[in-house]
Amino acid sequence: MSDFTSSLKPRYDGPATLAAERNGSSINIPELSKHLLSRDGFLSRQEKVLQVLKRDRLFSKDQQLNLSRPDRYHLGLARAKAIQRIVRREGWDHEDYKMAEYLVDEMSPFHLHMSMFVTTVREQGSEEQKAYWMPQILNYDIIGCYAQSELGHGSNVRGLETTATWDPVKKEFEIHSPHLTASKWWNGTMGRTATHAIVVAQLLLPHPSNPSNLISHGPQPFILRIRDQRTHLPLPGIAVGDIGPKYGYASMDNGYMLFDHLRVPRSAMLSRYAEVSAETGALSRRGHPAVVYGSLTFVRGQIVMHARLVLARAVTVAVRYCAIRRQFHDRDDVKGERGEMQVLDYPTVQIRILPLLATTFALHYTGEMMYDLYHGTRETVEKGDFGPLAELHSASSGLKSLCTTIAADGIETCRRAMGGHGFGGGSGLVGINADYLSKPTVEGDNWMITQQVAASLIKKMTSCVQNPHAEPKDPTDAIFLYYLKNKDTHIPQSPIHPPNNGKADFEFTDKAIVDIFQWRAAALSHDAYTARIIEKKPWTSLMIQLHALSRAYSEQILITTFYNALTTTPTTPTSLRPTPNLSHPTTNILTTCFHLHALHTLSLSPPTFLLTNSIPLSLLAHLPNAILHLMTALRPHAVALVDAWAIPEYVLDSALGRGDGRVYEELFDMAHRRNPLNRVTFNVDWRSEEIVRGSGDAGRGVLGKL
Amino acid sequence: MSDFTSSLKPRYDGPATLAAERNGSSINIPELSKHLLSRDGFLSRQEKVLQVLKRDRLFSKDQQLNLSRPDRYHLGLARAKAIQRIVRREGWDHEDYKMAEYLVDEMSPFHLHMSMFVTTVREQGSEEQKAYWMPQILNYDIIGCYAQSELGHGSNVRGLETTATWDPVKKEFEIHSPHLTASKWWNGTMGRTATHAIVVAQLLLPHPSNPSNLISHGPQPFILRIRDQRTHLPLPGIAVGDIGPKYGYASMDNGYMLFDHLRVPRSAMLSRYAEVSAETGALSRRGHPAVVYGSLTFVRGQIVMHARLVLARAVTVAVRYCAIRRQFHDRDDVKGERGEMQVLDYPTVQIRILPLLATTFALHYTGEMMYDLYHGTRETVEKGDFGPLAELHSASSGLKSLCTTIAADGIETCRRAMGGHGFGGGSGLVGINADYLSKPTVEGDNWMITQQVAASLIKKMTSCVQNPHAEPKDPTDAIFLYYLKNKDTHIPQSPIHPPNNGKADFEFTDKAIVDIFQWRAAALSHDAYTARIIEKKPWTSLMIQLHALSRAYSEQILITTFYNALTTTPTTPTSLRPTPNLSHPTTNILTTCFHLHALHTLSLSPPTFLLTNSIPLSLLAHLPNAILHLMTALRPHAVALVDAWAIPEYVLDSALGRGDGRVYEELFDMAHRRNPLNRVTFNVDWRSEEIVRGSGDAGRGVLGKL
Repeated sequence: MSDFTSSLKPRYDGPATLAAERNGSSINIPELSKHLLSRDGFLSRQEKVLQVLKRDRLFSKDQQLNLSRPDRYHLGLARAKAIQRIVRREGWDHEDYKMAEYLVDEMSPFHLHMSMFVTTVREQGSEEQKAYWMPQILNYDIIGCYAQSELGHGSNVRGLETTATWDPVKKEFEIHSPHLTASKWWNGTMGRTATHAIVVAQLLLPHPSNPSNLISHGPQPFILRIRDQRTHLPLPGIAVGDIGPKYGYASMDNGYMLFDHLRVPRSAMLSRYAEVSAETGALSRRGHPAVVYGSLTFVRGQIVMHARLVLARAVTVAVRYCAIRRQFHDRDDVKGERGEMQVLDYPTVQIRILPLLATTFALHYTGEMMYDLYHGTRETVEKGDFGPLAELHSASSGLKSLCTTIAADGIETCRRAMGGHGFGGGSGLVGINADYLSKPTVEGDNWMITQQVAASLIKKMTSCVQNPHAEPKDPTDAIFLYYLKNKDTHIPQSPIHPPNNGKADFEFTDKAIVDIFQWRAAALSHDAYTARIIEKKPWTSLMIQLHALSRAYSEQILITTFYNALTTTPTTPTSLRPTPNLSHPTTNILTTCFHLHALHTLSLSPPTFLLTNSIPLSLLAHLPNAILHLMTALRPHAVALVDAWAIPEYVLDSALGRGDGRVYEELFDMAHRRNPLNRVTFNVDWRSEEIVRGSGDAGRGVLGKL
Repeated sequence: MSDFTSSLKPRYDGPATLAAERNGSSINIPELSKHLLSRDGFLSRQEKVLQVLKRDRLFSKDQQLNLSRPDRYHLGLARAKAIQRIVRREGWDHEDYKMAEYLVDEMSPFHLHMSMFVTTVREQGSEEQKAYWMPQILNYDIIGCYAQSELGHGSNVRGLETTATWDPVKKEFEIHSPHLTASKWWNGTMGRTATHAIVVAQLLLPHPSNPSNLISHGPQPFILRIRDQRTHLPLPGIAVGDIGPKYGYASMDNGYMLFDHLRVPRSAMLSRYAEVSAETGALSRRGHPAVVYGSLTFVRGQIVMHARLVLARAVTVAVRYCAIRRQFHDRDDVKGERGEMQVLDYPTVQIRILPLLATTFALHYTGEMMYDLYHGTRETVEKGDFGPLAELHSASSGLKSLCTTIAADGIETCRRAMGGHGFGGGSGLVGINADYLSKPTVEGDNWMITQQVAASLIKKMTSCVQNPHAEPKDPTDAIFLYYLKNKDTHIPQSPIHPPNNGKADFEFTDKAIVDIFQWRAAALSHDAYTARIIEKKPWTSLMIQLHALSRAYSEQILITTFYNALTTTPTTPTSLRPTPNLSHPTTNILTTCFHLHALHTLSLSPPTFLLTNSIPLSLLAHLPNAILHLMTALRPHAVALVDAWAIPEYVLDSALGRGDGRVYEELFDMAHRRNPLNRVTFNVDWRSEEIVRGSGDAGRGVLGKL
């Protein structure tokens, strides 16, 4: 049967629209791409790995949204194994492997093996343990997971219920789950995949003088086999499985695990920093695991860098689609002479997408700064001396919290800005939205971990108050000391100069933008110091205030770092500062992004600026028009700017975000030619129990799965 | 094999915790439930329908998250048909049927049949057409859908591309899709289910004097068969199918449909209001379809009432779980004597959940008010005279926008407030979150439709400016006229009185709370009037401002209506006002909810209050502590308040939200005993292509679906 739909074209030409957008911008896209994505050969690596994955049908994402959750695990495992074969065939290094995980864009059932599992063995194992385990790990002869969080305790590691009790007679440990809530829970790779696990358990040792009295020595890591090598079934004394479907992470087997008086040898306890003596049963500690936390800044830098790509992806889809989508004539175009408007020309669409576009660059420069500081101080860090990294290290919790919240919320904001089609599978955002919603919670809940930042800022402010004339040790010190010196005489200045007094348009003072963010961070730190140290208020009663402080301080880092990256006279001199060397039009647009990111951030929480005397009230009156002005300046470059992020179509996996503009052709093709539901005809007569027409079957297929 | 896990108990007793919470509140839960849920016998109907559904395994939700999207449609269709059989067997009325849809909590493949399809035939069909179609519809002999939006046009109905051209020779219409973007798109029930459709198409009539020149007469509704009665296959000239997987709505077959010069008889055009003459080919219009929009307020009232139940559901889960969940000791409890804290006692958790709990009641009273006004004026409305409903009718777009945004965002806020387990399937929020994310977009995009409210407010303000001494015709008039009279002399008053000058605690002036919201709404209306009418600024440039105006105006309605429901001296006297007659402790707590809802709303957008001189700057300084104070007052009643919403366990479908507090037992049971993935053992050796252990199979099952 001929298909009359195959000759139909969309009313408006998508490819021509995107071509016009690209021609209308003076941005040098390849130059900006290179500026953003050259580190560690990202762009060329992306291309290399992509070509290999594209050749293998196993990595096609076409039907992913039609698979059940159990099937997504089957597929995830098949892919994880295939990647191992490819790694060996193609001679990929670890960065290539990580690029493949990024491009495939799902949590791999092997993911924990080469992240937390290997890292813990490497950092906490003794030399002997490493010699035994590392070859098996690197060869994937065993697959490991990391079992820390439990059903009853996530963030609170000290509250873990699983016990590891030393048996001085048999010279071994007994791992046990005293309550149901002691069940290990959420641990990735553990549910169906792992053969081994790092299990974090409370170490209980008999009291030296009264052995029936067990003394807790806090959580310690143990390495143990959890499944039989031959059958892959759980070992006796272990109940382990997958916890079931979740918001996202369909391909990952997040697991549970309980222990019934499981006996493990003394060598199971990772003993670089602590060991139980076989003879005396006493715990000896050596060295200090603080060095482990050195890499935390690097990990958090990775989270920020990943957040920028995730946000860039959502923004890419939204910008391209909203440039192509046309809806309504301008209300003042009474005769309809100008045609239907591109949706991206509506300020109500711009206000949702363009500040996020600007924010991708803010995240970028902070991620870069974290990497640079880490690499530049790597040697001293490995000795446990954080040097210039110390300040950033304590700030990294706040940055993780802020940047993952921005990205998670940003995906959904972009989705809604696309109207009806944003709700469809063609948005390409269904999977990433569900997966990324985990980020504000994992690796430290975004509300919880901000307490660490606040506590460190209160400590720093206390020290500054005590030594107001000291030399600043780091940028935050400098901000705090400046604040203390000027707080009684400070008159807030507006960085926004509206178009009058001879000016044709809005102008901005970049340094004054940085100043208001720094002043607010210092003032809120001082408020917190006053409440906690001087007035001795209960910590719990201050938690909302402390969360706001962490956010304000982190926003200040984004703003300062963005400014430093763009200006030739940075507020924080550092040899590590990225030097753009970009052509003039591109630098100009990035400056507009800086202004828009800053003013949009300001517009999200004006009271903290007002109440800290950081801005004059008059600024608020100009803010909406200043933001409109900036969006108008950014608008012609929106498509070029998202192009520069160079997100491959394979990652976008989006009809709406197609770089070639064939939005409607692709949406229709997905529905008309690639939707398996359309290959079945149904019996819709309510009198009949038959579901699939002509099958005579009362739906055994699906109903059997209930 | 014995299962050692079956003897394990959680460390803390969930049931005892919830019992203590319930004992700790003075709220009379049944009384409050009755107050909230008696309309149309809601509570008893809920119980009646629930008992019937529970007996049928087809309605079990246990494995829903493990089903693929195609299977969800199979299941949805099986359920839709089963409900029809139950309706007849049990003698259910239409309200019972709607209750079943609410409880099953998925978009039914029959949903559009008894909503937009039947409504359109009833409201736009001629008497003759109704006599022909209605019996078939009510008996479900045919299944109908409503095909308005298209691939290229959603909100902009005038931009629809599908044409219906009158053929004066054959006396029939030709329905045609000139472009790919003319494809009908998103229309529910159409993809696989419907036998018939209302198709909205541009009516093209030959020019009387020059028949080759076609004149468009705008969109008109046509009723047509789209599938063969015997085979259920599409009729010739029609391409129709399901558009594929989406964010939510897995059970619904949202469809696409294209027409290839399809010929339909003259009687296909629904002709209550417009008819093409068989003789002359001329269009005659009669009556005015404006009366159709009379029911819009009722529909939007339903949306608000539904939003309150959706939000109540998310809040129920979050409140119960956070009461049971314990994590960390109080930081000032240095010796750990007080045990681990209930998570709900952290202000950083309260600030996310408790204002939403308060907001469920705000939504409730506005929904009630909309119903009351509609019912109280039904007779006049049916004559096209909206009477006292006129004002609310124009405001209902703003209320739809505000209330669905609050509920959609609220679900996700509650989810995140639950930390790790909030990301799991046991939250019970996975499905509702994905489904409800459609609401801010469907039935008028939440950003788009606010323009209607703003336009109507500008018009009203213009009239008030022109007649400043007129008698107010409605409450908004009264607010505007008061504003115009006092705007030059107004001194903003704070409704918050902090604890000093002899006061032991915060106090609030309820009337002053209403005043600041009303003043702001009037001032922003005046600003918009000035910008558009006086300064003649382009409409598009004002869109962000107009959106903010609509939101502020709608927030004012929620606040005023809540106040009116609670006070004996309402600002708006109306005989339709709900009179609680609640016992004293309950009224007190509802008043606390009123304060918290209002102050939280204020805290979300302080600049619009400040810049309109609605509040003094000093209020902002007290706001955080006032909100803390209110949350402390509300906290002991949180569990009782969510109990009052009486959401059945079947609807919650949540381990975390269980009314009996057996959170951990249920989470573990879901994972350990009911997760199908745990019944399969996998081959994790990367050297082997086998996926399921012992099958020798390289994953034919899932890979065949790619």
